[in-house]
Amino acid sequence: MYFASDNTSPAHPKVLDALAKANEGYMPSYGADPIMDEVRDRIRDRFEAPEAAVYLVATGSTANALSLATFTDPWTAIFCHRISHVEEDECGAPEFYTGGAKLTLVDGAHGRMDPDALRHAIRFTGRGGVHNVQRGMVTLTNVTEAGTVYTVAQVEEIARTAREFGLPVHMDGARFANAIVATNATPAEMTWRAGVDVLSFGGTKNGLMGVEAVVIFDPDKAWEFELRRKRGGHLFSKHRYLSAQMLAYLEDDLWLQMARDANHAGQLLSDELMYLDGAALVHPADANMAFPSLPRALHRKAKAAGAQYNIWPGDQSLDGPDDEPVSARLVCSWCTTEDDVDAVLSTFKG
Amino acid sequence: MYFASDNTSPAHPKVLDALAKANEGYMPSYGADPIMDEVRDRIRDRFEAPEAAVYLVATGSTANALSLATFTDPWTAIFCHRISHVEEDECGAPEFYTGGAKLTLVDGAHGRMDPDALRHAIRFTGRGGVHNVQRGMVTLTNVTEAGTVYTVAQVEEIARTAREFGLPVHMDGARFANAIVATNATPAEMTWRAGVDVLSFGGTKNGLMGVEAVVIFDPDKAWEFELRRKRGGHLFSKHRYLSAQMLAYLEDDLWLQMARDANHAGQLLSDELMYLDGAALVHPADANMAFPSLPRALHRKAKAAGAQYNIWPGDQSLDGPDDEPVSARLVCSWCTTEDDVDAVLSTFKG
Amino acid sequence: MYFASDNTSPAHPKVLDALAKANEGYMPSYGADPIMDEVRDRIRDRFEAPEAAVYLVATGSTANALSLATFTDPWTAIFCHRISHVEEDECGAPEFYTGGAKLTLVDGAHGRMDPDALRHAIRFTGRGGVHNVQRGMVTLTNVTEAGTVYTVAQVEEIARTAREFGLPVHMDGARFANAIVATNATPAEMTWRAGVDVLSFGGTKNGLMGVEAVVIFDPDKAWEFELRRKRGGHLFSKHRYLSAQMLAYLEDDLWLQMARDANHAGQLLSDELMYLDGAALVHPADANMAFPSLPRALHRKAKAAGAQYNIWPGDQSLDGPDDEPVSARLVCSWCTTEDDVDAVLSTFKG
Amino acid sequence: MYFASDNTSPAHPKVLDALAKANEGYMPSYGADPIMDEVRDRIRDRFEAPEAAVYLVATGSTANALSLATFTDPWTAIFCHRISHVEEDECGAPEFYTGGAKLTLVDGAHGRMDPDALRHAIRFTGRGGVHNVQRGMVTLTNVTEAGTVYTVAQVEEIARTAREFGLPVHMDGARFANAIVATNATPAEMTWRAGVDVLSFGGTKNGLMGVEAVVIFDPDKAWEFELRRKRGGHLFSKHRYLSAQMLAYLEDDLWLQMARDANHAGQLLSDELMYLDGAALVHPADANMAFPSLPRALHRKAKAAGAQYNIWPGDQSLDGPDDEPVSARLVCSWCTTEDDVDAVLSTFKG
Repeated sequence: MYFASDNTSPAHPKVLDALAKANEGYMPSYGADPIMDEVRDRIRDRFEAPEAAVYLVATGSTANALSLATFTDPWTAIFCHRISHVEEDECGAPEFYTGGAKLTLVDGAHGRMDPDALRHAIRFTGRGGVHNVQRGMVTLTNVTEAGTVYTVAQVEEIARTAREFGLPVHMDGARFANAIVATNATPAEMTWRAGVDVLSFGGTKNGLMGVEAVVIFDPDKAWEFELRRKRGGHLFSKHRYLSAQMLAYLEDDLWLQMARDANHAGQLLSDELMYLDGAALVHPADANMAFPSLPRALHRKAKAAGAQYNIWPGDQSLDGPDDEPVSARLVCSWCTTEDDVDAVLSTFKG
Repeated sequence: MYFASDNTSPAHPKVLDALAKANEGYMPSYGADPIMDEVRDRIRDRFEAPEAAVYLVATGSTANALSLATFTDPWTAIFCHRISHVEEDECGAPEFYTGGAKLTLVDGAHGRMDPDALRHAIRFTGRGGVHNVQRGMVTLTNVTEAGTVYTVAQVEEIARTAREFGLPVHMDGARFANAIVATNATPAEMTWRAGVDVLSFGGTKNGLMGVEAVVIFDPDKAWEFELRRKRGGHLFSKHRYLSAQMLAYLEDDLWLQMARDANHAGQLLSDELMYLDGAALVHPADANMAFPSLPRALHRKAKAAGAQYNIWPGDQSLDGPDDEPVSARLVCSWCTTEDDVDAVLSTFKG
Repeated sequence: MYFASDNTSPAHPKVLDALAKANEGYMPSYGADPIMDEVRDRIRDRFEAPEAAVYLVATGSTANALSLATFTDPWTAIFCHRISHVEEDECGAPEFYTGGAKLTLVDGAHGRMDPDALRHAIRFTGRGGVHNVQRGMVTLTNVTEAGTVYTVAQVEEIARTAREFGLPVHMDGARFANAIVATNATPAEMTWRAGVDVLSFGGTKNGLMGVEAVVIFDPDKAWEFELRRKRGGHLFSKHRYLSAQMLAYLEDDLWLQMARDANHAGQLLSDELMYLDGAALVHPADANMAFPSLPRALHRKAKAAGAQYNIWPGDQSLDGPDDEPVSARLVCSWCTTEDDVDAVLSTFKG
Repeated sequence: MYFASDNTSPAHPKVLDALAKANEGYMPSYGADPIMDEVRDRIRDRFEAPEAAVYLVATGSTANALSLATFTDPWTAIFCHRISHVEEDECGAPEFYTGGAKLTLVDGAHGRMDPDALRHAIRFTGRGGVHNVQRGMVTLTNVTEAGTVYTVAQVEEIARTAREFGLPVHMDGARFANAIVATNATPAEMTWRAGVDVLSFGGTKNGLMGVEAVVIFDPDKAWEFELRRKRGGHLFSKHRYLSAQMLAYLEDDLWLQMARDANHAGQLLSDELMYLDGAALVHPADANMAFPSLPRALHRKAKAAGAQYNIWPGDQSLDGPDDEPVSARLVCSWCTTEDDVDAVLSTFKG
């Protein structure tokens, strides 16, 4: 009954197989391995972006921070949602990698930036000339931290707003696969065709051990990205083991199949949670995450029965009146079964 | 015939087995996995350092840069050998992580800092009060970039020199296992007993896929290290896969066995190279690397026959008179066999 | 009719005299001038803080940024008011000097942080352990950017809130003199006795050419501050000219006299503005600044007649209906006379 | 008898007059003062560079650090002389402002980089692709820290070497006036015509209170420089007082007249020192500084008699055998008279 995060789940067996296969004989290091050549070709192909620069790193924070640093100056503002991962969960990695850029927080329901709020935030920034930080770039997260998904049209609207001011756009796609499955969009539609300049294409949360691709649709930025990656300590010498994971991910669209299974479990879970007395959804469950509000007593029962998930936001307490609503986050992953969902549901029923 | 670097070699099969074993079910993320608890215990035990803080990262540059940043201030000088990895091969990662510390280069034969040169460099630094960068820390590399090994006594002398000025000491042990095998020292003798405060304990070059431990003998620095690691993007969510590699490394002293094999191949190779006409050793071959000087014609033959190794230093050319000496670096790894050594030797004979 | 900012006004004649007096013969450089010794003594005396470290820099942004950097780590949050100078007017100097700390914005009426909002912001920060930026420090501005003044009791409440979490407190006192005059507090009451650890003690806006003192009540931080000042390029070789300005400022409490005159003009101006048809004060005029809301037509008249002041906030326009209220900022300085006030008032009357 | 540094001397009386004149009435702040317009015009005119961007800052370290940061990336090497001010006397300001660039030290007699040594250092840098810091820029100092002067031809040779690799060139001209006087070159010949891209044009050491101009011959870099200046806290609100000093400096070529007087005193001093028993010049005295080597006993006499100057380099001691040579640095300034020179000379004679 592990619903704490998709990063508590194991890797898909095919990933292990790919590592074993890659582990034969000598191979050039630092990204010059032939497996990486294939990864690059496949990602370009899958994104219909034959010129895109493609790099692998091992963590999502790294993919985000390097992407932001490559597209901004230290004296700029990066516009992001108030509850975005870059703002809340990376211990300031974006500030570190950019050399001190400012994260300017934009509101919007259910984890999605409101385009008008974004426009206002950008407008308000840098009007004072040299006295202010300048307008830098926009980053949005899809799937959002609230478990919702931006449609292609919504991404386009955010990107259009950024373009009004000449700003580039980054997408934090730690759960990109889940967003693609949820929208039925193609990777190209969801990214460069919608106006995204650089994508953190997540794998770790969706069945890999630890690999994220960065897809840069403007190849002029490639060399700077490579230098920043190396300087950050993120260029792997035995790079083949990153490549092999990512190749397995792409093979036969394993990435989409895993996301489909995770989303299916997420939908099932959120649907079933609504049958509990006093239940409500805090956010629409567009992908693999459910954010139910439940009477406190139910959480106490579930926790006592060993259910693993987080009270969300974290400033709520399990101490207090039984009936008071307390909200939570439950995350499904590629390996969450219908039985797992039933099991966790039963803990709330006591 | 791959002698370009020990990072072109595969991982040991036991490492793959360990990954497969770790890949079962759900597990807490971000270093809270139970495998890490075991790794920590074993490293503390092996180093006879029950209070040491132990962390895992995926690259050697990261281990070094985080270690240096944790023990210095941005306005200090880090004293290192002129040909050290931190100076030459990390694209400025130490400067990035420290916030702009200065690497002050110290000379010394065969990649080892000369204690008198070190003392002079430290003395010369920071005499002008606030006008100068201050004295920060000392970092030495064992095995050195010249393939030589500091004995315990030599490490002690460097550390004693640092202590004269109150400076902490870091050891870049990307090839620590090879140094231990070469000296027959215990890990404790080679590190904290000799005056080392923090160690980059390498695994990647010696049979792992990509894991280095950082062993901090002063646990007061632990929390700052953790924050710097996270902020640098180096805290793995599915941390179990780092832990599993390191546990396999430590199990039955696999790390020492692999280093023993690599060193044996290195010795054999350097011994045999000396039988070639016109051969000389540029540096003593203390561990798994050979630095022969050979008539240029021999290099041309070897390269033509497919031998993989680097001309070293890189500013020499294969174009020129046949007889002129040209130096090179050949690196053996845990899986280099005697047959491999024979094979590469035969390419020089043509 | 210059009411755009107190930094458009000249220096007091006594400051010029002091410079001329200081300009005789040779004098030790870099802060070792005997005038600085006297400045240090006088500031310690005036603040009843015999151990305080005292430094001079030339700009307010520098005083703030160095103060914040000396008391925080790069991976922390600095809590400040949403419209504070450090957030809005320094092009990211705090982020630059701290190495990428995050400015967390706190609301509160009229430019003063609300203690509950501050407590909530601090509580919300760093709960997630290593994943979040940590709690760093609190900075408040007195006089605020809204022209209001924190009373000593209000400063104490902010500082007490910071202390609940063990955080140090900085006061941006670019207009400290005006706050002292407005409250009749002693410098000690307004700072260290109220819980302030470090003060930017402004001079430039109040009759100097360009000098701010930094008063650090915890002398343990002194050496780090000195290194940061030097490394930032802010240690003057011919330091005597900073010292001389500051000495003139302190002599016979010229600083308080100038602030008294500026505050008097500010009060008079805001009082008189209220007699205009349709006028309202956006913020209480506690010191030397008035923030009136006036019918747009009046602004157009005043601007046409040559009045110099800023529409505030800056996203309002002079184009639009005559009667619509538009707000503005008018700043008085040490040399603003009652005639000046009358003159600007008459421009609104047309 | 102050020969410790040219920054222990006062400002020229005309500078004080200019300040007094500038201190009348209100004036736009932050560099929008009309005096700055005149300064800009005059510098462009004097340098025959009508497009040059011209900025004022208050310290030489700032002028250098901002110049270097504007023309390099954090992952590059800045090539400078081993004893340059940026390396030895700025507490790492270049590293701080550039975000961690590496200062690569180049040798050369008497404080001037040897072009071949420079070429070798550049060649040796960045050959390893992404693994190394990249080639950044070249900075040379004129007058050098050894008191010697690069001729125009020598500057051209350094710049040509930089150009072979496409690198921009900075000149640290803290004593630029003294170099111009020593060579009879025009400012244009000494800078952009010789291949210099950006100049720190010093005033503080040569009779101002604290102003340096930065002259950027490539105006495309202007806006980035302005942002970096502001973010560093170096944009003065009451900028008129910087402008006024610089205008006085340029008026009737006061800067050249002061440098001429300083150089004259320096020549006289170094000539006369040679008459002392056992005297030798460590470096040619091209401008306003003398570096004599003298028997230790003479230094003891001079110090006892109150002569103010520095033993140079600073690792020598006044304790030891009388006859042993000890070297020193004596600096003349715009106000050093022949009598001053006689006075200091007489102290050595005892």
